[in-house]
Amino acid sequence: MSLVIVGSVAYDAIETPYGKTDKIVGGAATYAGIAASYIYHPIRIVSVVGDDFGADNLALFTSRGIDISGIQIKPGEKSFFWSGKYHEDLNRRDTLITDLNVLANFNPVIPDSYLDCEYLLLGNLTPQVQLIALERLKGNPKLIVLDTMNFWMDIALDDLLHVLRKIDVLTINDEEARQLSGEYSLVKAAEKILKMGPKYLIVKKGEHGALLFGEGKIFAAPALPLAEVFDPTGAGDSFAGGFIGYLAKHGIVNFEHMRNAIIYGSTLASFCVEKFGVHRISDLDTSAIQERIEKFSELTRFTL
Amino acid sequence: MSLVIVGSVAYDAIETPYGKTDKIVGGAATYAGIAASYIYHPIRIVSVVGDDFGADNLALFTSRGIDISGIQIKPGEKSFFWSGKYHEDLNRRDTLITDLNVLANFNPVIPDSYLDCEYLLLGNLTPQVQLIALERLKGNPKLIVLDTMNFWMDIALDDLLHVLRKIDVLTINDEEARQLSGEYSLVKAAEKILKMGPKYLIVKKGEHGALLFGEGKIFAAPALPLAEVFDPTGAGDSFAGGFIGYLAKHGIVNFEHMRNAIIYGSTLASFCVEKFGVHRISDLDTSAIQERIEKFSELTRFTL
Repeated sequence: MSLVIVGSVAYDAIETPYGKTDKIVGGAATYAGIAASYIYHPIRIVSVVGDDFGADNLALFTSRGIDISGIQIKPGEKSFFWSGKYHEDLNRRDTLITDLNVLANFNPVIPDSYLDCEYLLLGNLTPQVQLIALERLKGNPKLIVLDTMNFWMDIALDDLLHVLRKIDVLTINDEEARQLSGEYSLVKAAEKILKMGPKYLIVKKGEHGALLFGEGKIFAAPALPLAEVFDPTGAGDSFAGGFIGYLAKHGIVNFEHMRNAIIYGSTLASFCVEKFGVHRISDLDTSAIQERIEKFSELTRFTL
Repeated sequence: MSLVIVGSVAYDAIETPYGKTDKIVGGAATYAGIAASYIYHPIRIVSVVGDDFGADNLALFTSRGIDISGIQIKPGEKSFFWSGKYHEDLNRRDTLITDLNVLANFNPVIPDSYLDCEYLLLGNLTPQVQLIALERLKGNPKLIVLDTMNFWMDIALDDLLHVLRKIDVLTINDEEARQLSGEYSLVKAAEKILKMGPKYLIVKKGEHGALLFGEGKIFAAPALPLAEVFDPTGAGDSFAGGFIGYLAKHGIVNFEHMRNAIIYGSTLASFCVEKFGVHRISDLDTSAIQERIEKFSELTRFTL
């Protein structure tokens, strides 16, 4: 039994109001895998990089006990590269460069050892690639979580709708939920989206937290209010990793467990944004995570 | 002992994506007073209207057991009138008409019977008038809650800073907290604002809920996700009324009680937005309120 994460492993160059990086390790599968690794094992990653992706970078995964036999290394090719600049409010960002490189022809290879997949996270990629990965994993994962973005709603809606019919949990942000459903009210948006296939919908609202819809219920989690949000890159992926990691650990998939899973996801995301890239989430210990989960309890409790 | 609410009693004409009203009863003290009346008595209002404000409208207050002996009725003058149009997302609105009328020279008169004031809500008015009302109430209310808005930060900042030194709780929205403090992070904004005088700060975030800062702690409450938000007018005032009403009822002013008070405020606000004007909040029963408070528990609970 394992948690398989399909997604990008890449280089980012990030500028925020607080500073600027050269090429640093990024990618949805990177953030999600590292976040989940504090909660559950084994974790197996499916991705592709160029031979510019150094062994020291791959060690980021192996040092966290993550199986990288599903990461293809393409000789003579370059890794996916994204560069972006965040606005003052950190909620908006401009993409400066998107070099797809190896991701342009990503043909996910699933090692046989990955076929024990019970929990599957399909990180933000073209819906076609998400579907191929899903089909190649055969079997029938107990839980399939899919992340996507407005870009695919714009240019590959049919493919996206196709893969949505095969998954359990969709994670998108509030604008994307509105775009996908055509409804402004998130309650109505969720009703429509839950008819498209997913049994559960998570709406990520950045500094405003997240909403979970499913089983006719709603759960609202705040984001941890932070004095300094240094770099929001990877927060959503860290959230997804913490979320599915918690569910994999406990082996129970229902709304009640997803409440806790969302708090785990929010906790990992809150660490992620404290430093550039994966610097903070690759350097956690379980007591720091536990402490922060208690902060979420303090933040939300009341006694009525 | 009583709860005194100083604020506008007025006419509004509202247009939302869902409909349009002629002149209907509005005003901060109206919403706050009606909301609080489900929780605590006696409630006494300080305000001013013109003789165009009919007896049937004043009955809105008296039928809820609210003392209106502090509402001056100015013969030959007109009541404050505001007209606005909400955008599709209901978070933004354009003001179409603001006729100050009687509010232009509002000189708050405090009946002697109001001097038993223990809980005081200073609704959004010019900071000068808020200060005068505060001084005339003499005594030393156990709790003073003040609501204000960006407009006064723009044109009467010194007066506002002066009155802030005399209050206990400030309620503003997130943009206003950022404007008042010059800090983007709400955690940093709260730190600065709490040095300006208030012991507690409530940041209202509309559909994203509210944050309470004070005693070195933070409490985050979501808004109740609603399929239909019909008219957001008065939601903030209903929130303030529910908040101070709860504290007055329990007679204890501290962070722990304010957690519950915020849930009461959020509950009243969630009713307010379901219909135009005061139509929904003037027609509640306590079982509906209790039921909705339980919804907030369901919405936020987790078991970590």
